[in-house]
Amino acid sequence: MSNSIGTVFRYTVWGQSHSPAVGVTIEGIPAGTPIDLARLQAFLDRRRPGRDPLSSPRREEDVPEFVSGITKDAGGSGTVTACGAPVTAVIRNTDVRSSDYEELRDIPRPGHADLTAMIRYGGAGDRAGGGAFSGRMTAPLCVAGGIALQILERQGVHISARPVRIGGETDPEKMRGAVAAAAAEGDSVGGVIECVVEGVPAGVGEPMFDGLENRIAQAVFGIPAVKGIEFGSGFAGADRKGSENNDPFVLQPGTGADIPGRIRTVSNNHGGALGGLSSGMPIVFRAAVKPTPSIAKEQDSVDIRTGEAVRLRVKGRHDPCIVPRALPAVEAAAAGAVYDLIRLRETGGI
Amino acid sequence: MSNSIGTVFRYTVWGQSHSPAVGVTIEGIPAGTPIDLARLQAFLDRRRPGRDPLSSPRREEDVPEFVSGITKDAGGSGTVTACGAPVTAVIRNTDVRSSDYEELRDIPRPGHADLTAMIRYGGAGDRAGGGAFSGRMTAPLCVAGGIALQILERQGVHISARPVRIGGETDPEKMRGAVAAAAAEGDSVGGVIECVVEGVPAGVGEPMFDGLENRIAQAVFGIPAVKGIEFGSGFAGADRKGSENNDPFVLQPGTGADIPGRIRTVSNNHGGALGGLSSGMPIVFRAAVKPTPSIAKEQDSVDIRTGEAVRLRVKGRHDPCIVPRALPAVEAAAAGAVYDLIRLRETGGI
Amino acid sequence: MSNSIGTVFRYTVWGQSHSPAVGVTIEGIPAGTPIDLARLQAFLDRRRPGRDPLSSPRREEDVPEFVSGITKDAGGSGTVTACGAPVTAVIRNTDVRSSDYEELRDIPRPGHADLTAMIRYGGAGDRAGGGAFSGRMTAPLCVAGGIALQILERQGVHISARPVRIGGETDPEKMRGAVAAAAAEGDSVGGVIECVVEGVPAGVGEPMFDGLENRIAQAVFGIPAVKGIEFGSGFAGADRKGSENNDPFVLQPGTGADIPGRIRTVSNNHGGALGGLSSGMPIVFRAAVKPTPSIAKEQDSVDIRTGEAVRLRVKGRHDPCIVPRALPAVEAAAAGAVYDLIRLRETGGI
Amino acid sequence: MSNSIGTVFRYTVWGQSHSPAVGVTIEGIPAGTPIDLARLQAFLDRRRPGRDPLSSPRREEDVPEFVSGITKDAGGSGTVTACGAPVTAVIRNTDVRSSDYEELRDIPRPGHADLTAMIRYGGAGDRAGGGAFSGRMTAPLCVAGGIALQILERQGVHISARPVRIGGETDPEKMRGAVAAAAAEGDSVGGVIECVVEGVPAGVGEPMFDGLENRIAQAVFGIPAVKGIEFGSGFAGADRKGSENNDPFVLQPGTGADIPGRIRTVSNNHGGALGGLSSGMPIVFRAAVKPTPSIAKEQDSVDIRTGEAVRLRVKGRHDPCIVPRALPAVEAAAAGAVYDLIRLRETGGI
Repeated sequence: MSNSIGTVFRYTVWGQSHSPAVGVTIEGIPAGTPIDLARLQAFLDRRRPGRDPLSSPRREEDVPEFVSGITKDAGGSGTVTACGAPVTAVIRNTDVRSSDYEELRDIPRPGHADLTAMIRYGGAGDRAGGGAFSGRMTAPLCVAGGIALQILERQGVHISARPVRIGGETDPEKMRGAVAAAAAEGDSVGGVIECVVEGVPAGVGEPMFDGLENRIAQAVFGIPAVKGIEFGSGFAGADRKGSENNDPFVLQPGTGADIPGRIRTVSNNHGGALGGLSSGMPIVFRAAVKPTPSIAKEQDSVDIRTGEAVRLRVKGRHDPCIVPRALPAVEAAAAGAVYDLIRLRETGGI
Repeated sequence: MSNSIGTVFRYTVWGQSHSPAVGVTIEGIPAGTPIDLARLQAFLDRRRPGRDPLSSPRREEDVPEFVSGITKDAGGSGTVTACGAPVTAVIRNTDVRSSDYEELRDIPRPGHADLTAMIRYGGAGDRAGGGAFSGRMTAPLCVAGGIALQILERQGVHISARPVRIGGETDPEKMRGAVAAAAAEGDSVGGVIECVVEGVPAGVGEPMFDGLENRIAQAVFGIPAVKGIEFGSGFAGADRKGSENNDPFVLQPGTGADIPGRIRTVSNNHGGALGGLSSGMPIVFRAAVKPTPSIAKEQDSVDIRTGEAVRLRVKGRHDPCIVPRALPAVEAAAAGAVYDLIRLRETGGI
Repeated sequence: MSNSIGTVFRYTVWGQSHSPAVGVTIEGIPAGTPIDLARLQAFLDRRRPGRDPLSSPRREEDVPEFVSGITKDAGGSGTVTACGAPVTAVIRNTDVRSSDYEELRDIPRPGHADLTAMIRYGGAGDRAGGGAFSGRMTAPLCVAGGIALQILERQGVHISARPVRIGGETDPEKMRGAVAAAAAEGDSVGGVIECVVEGVPAGVGEPMFDGLENRIAQAVFGIPAVKGIEFGSGFAGADRKGSENNDPFVLQPGTGADIPGRIRTVSNNHGGALGGLSSGMPIVFRAAVKPTPSIAKEQDSVDIRTGEAVRLRVKGRHDPCIVPRALPAVEAAAAGAVYDLIRLRETGGI
Repeated sequence: MSNSIGTVFRYTVWGQSHSPAVGVTIEGIPAGTPIDLARLQAFLDRRRPGRDPLSSPRREEDVPEFVSGITKDAGGSGTVTACGAPVTAVIRNTDVRSSDYEELRDIPRPGHADLTAMIRYGGAGDRAGGGAFSGRMTAPLCVAGGIALQILERQGVHISARPVRIGGETDPEKMRGAVAAAAAEGDSVGGVIECVVEGVPAGVGEPMFDGLENRIAQAVFGIPAVKGIEFGSGFAGADRKGSENNDPFVLQPGTGADIPGRIRTVSNNHGGALGGLSSGMPIVFRAAVKPTPSIAKEQDSVDIRTGEAVRLRVKGRHDPCIVPRALPAVEAAAAGAVYDLIRLRETGGI
């Protein structure tokens, strides 16, 4: 597997759903960077299950232990400081109920990586709880991204993700209704998450293959269940004419920067990225999240020992919709990508 | 800029629209790999302008000179052989009409990278013809990807891209009509390209951040004008229920492989990738291509010398729709990504 | 810091001398790879202090906890199996006596990274016990390299390092005498380690910049105190004539392989690498290890608070010669580099 | 092969001795960087053969054509400007006399990569003139490194290499005598090159695996014939005691920087690098260059077609000592490594 991403701000996510721990090792946090552990924990808590009556009742404490890369919290203020060495955070796996997965040992769940992992890793693969393909892996992702978010916020860059569609609904109340209805029938729903990155100065990105879209997409597709991403007007823009989709340029009042630095676009169909470089407008992208594949409804699968067709009901505790819990993961993935590109920009770029 | 992509099959695209040449340097082509130059040229010709009455009348010969990495064509068969050293192909830029771009020197074109490049690279940037942001850069991309395609085809992997929407139309004739109509009014249209990769064995991909979706997305967003990508049911799937979007498993008849290797899905909402790993089903993705930003219609821009608002008509020779010419670029980008992941798989994976 | 190395077999060493733990995260161990924990522990124990009356009396248990990437030891045989996910090993730091380092907080030790780390990481740097520059970091290096060694040995590749000079002596007994003499006067000695890698098939290496010498050197210089490396006749060969230094080719009897595969050299002045590729002869290199910089003898330093000259005696428990403990680290560094290159070779090479 | 090196300043050397061209593609030259072509040519000329009566009479013009990444030489001053896109330089191969190598097609030359390349690349390998293993490849290396040198010099960093031993002699006149004597008897001699890098600010380097020593060694071993490298007192220091090898710290007069920034060492046994980080003292390393393997004297080899033992005399035009021509290559390799690390430092480091 390749669980590493980034060039200067580079992190490696590790662990499996039922291994002793999951965690992340992060290189490239400058010495002296403060890390507010309380704020980080609050960020991590957003992805925890059990906070919402509609979400899985599992309890995961998700309290990372920082075993390297920081100097201790002197004042007890809850803020530690990066010392320049790689930062490793360990999150112990607790409340593991492998029994839920016993019967799945030989029956791949539709929509999951069970089958592809069986083929790739064979009998040696760790499939309990989805192994390294579990949504659980977004916890360490959120540690790395949450630290990047804190750094970015000090630089005036703010990232926030929200659901714009759930179960086909766009009204918040109807979204909740769609989740409840799916839950009631042992089914699940997906949705679309919109993420906005504000405050990135113009000119950030390393085109052609490490531009904003390339890097954000590479990171966001690391979140299980994401099956699509679009920037700005995206797929809708593909149906428009150039005269409709182009964003006219206007000069901002004021004398702050040189003229190019003061030019903005009237609209933001380009989603804040032109040629892979930030334009100074908000970076806007949407990620398509598929419905939770683990459902109680019967589905067709195959027993890999016997080859017999099986009617499978996935037991265990599953979210009828993972969109709410995926929000911080999307912010974290975007934060890591954007911060790395800002760092590269500071060098004069690759 | 970061114009390199790949781990084992790694290539660097270089050049600008009006530099003496564009080209590509490719590492990781195994010694002994045959390269059919005639087929490669036919592939490159698909992206050339001027083939279609509706496309730009520019003539670009796009005949690469291989200056390293191959042993000469002994038999005159038109097939050369990779010698194991990096392969560099040089494509001279001819028919350069910088005059078309003279007035653009100080007036950024809406929808283009002109402004962001000005900010990033300043006065030193090469903006003629879009510089390194030009669609011209897809020529060397197609050389690298075209070689990967030939290797993949010998392994039984086939990649083909087609337009599924142009100007909002899905019927081929209506697509042409939409392009003609846009051209007639000095406007442009975008579209959606669907690409299918068949024959990839199950288990290819390096999740979590170098899975099939991550890597294909990273490559495809390197094509100018691509603003979105989705796999399988993608954004539509996000509106479905799990019971609708999950792909049931069935056992294929026959005794060829072990049982897991014989399991297929009835439908392909997952687009051939589960957990970032190939499932053995066709890999299916769609890319959103924005309408050509260069249009003859008047648009609002700003003169960066004076800060004055300008009404801009983009002169020069531009495609009213770049979707047709983008098809081989999408195939090339996908081929490079898939071939690299197949190579990594052969090592036992990262 | 950049604590990561390798392309396919890639590991990141993390931790500081006095952080809660040191450890390593390893990507690229194929699923199904057995890891013999008892043998790994025996290997790690070779670098532990306190085994030799002449070495530091510190006690470090150095028992790694594998928190990810393995499936549990079913049979209690002491052998676990890699599951294909990144392997993370955590080694808790115990017996930390920061007090020994209190007075060093502001007085850089000659020959150490104290001063350069102060300048690079400033007040935020973790200097206790040498921080991330401590010899302690060779423990996680030995975990990664020790696993690579086990894989290599199953492939018939054997690596072993031995001291060829200590304190200028080449006779083992005199080496011990030199260490004892230096210890008695509160001084230290350095030495030269010779490492031999046997069984690497011919043709392994990725010249020009990832050849055997490049990669082994990059890894071995990661060991604190290594200041030089030479392959084959190395510096001595530079004083010879071509007719003396070239290794004549001869054909091995037998019919096993094709002719090139049966060609060997009579001598091994090339140290097993020609053009960065393995020749089939043993890979032989020597590493220069400087004398332990921490000595009880008075040395000149400067107090960074006051700028005053200081006569420093380094207290604490230090090895009068680190060569014996560096042996497994050299084997580990070489193993990681060689195994990565063998893996790359299997793909047909970069 | 892996002909790429660097993280932010990253270049790929390509070509073979007898391919149409050799060259280099460089990423990471900031837009606006001036490149003095006349000075670059003067630097390249230092590695050209035929300048010294004792060196090979081959004529290689080695005039790079910059086909991308620069804006044209406006004033005719001979200075061009990087535009921020990858810079590709093409050096045509002229005066190629393959006939000299005809008989070598099947007889590997002792001390060369012929045999290992045969095994690695098989019949498809390009062996003419040593293919991609030829000293010819140092020409594009010198283009990349020569550009880095110009950037570094503007930052006050100066790099210069000189021979300190040739044929075992340390006196310049005796060095020349040794070369002449070897030439007269159809033999060759090697030597040791010392390279000094002055002006690097303290704190540059990315330990543990991308420190100054790691990176410089990785680059310098990319030069054919280099078989060893040592920093500071290197192998000699390994025979010393800590009290002899440690470099005492003293405070420099003046009030320029903070105290740590004003601390220097009295001696430089550490060679300017402590813990992989620059100390502010000159970075000093020595590279062992083996004697030219191509000699007219008879040597034992094997005919790979027949397996018969052969007495080989290498015809063709060869330098009796490549040390003089290797000097700019060593400077170039060091420049690329140091400049990349300085750039990484500017980001706050990896």
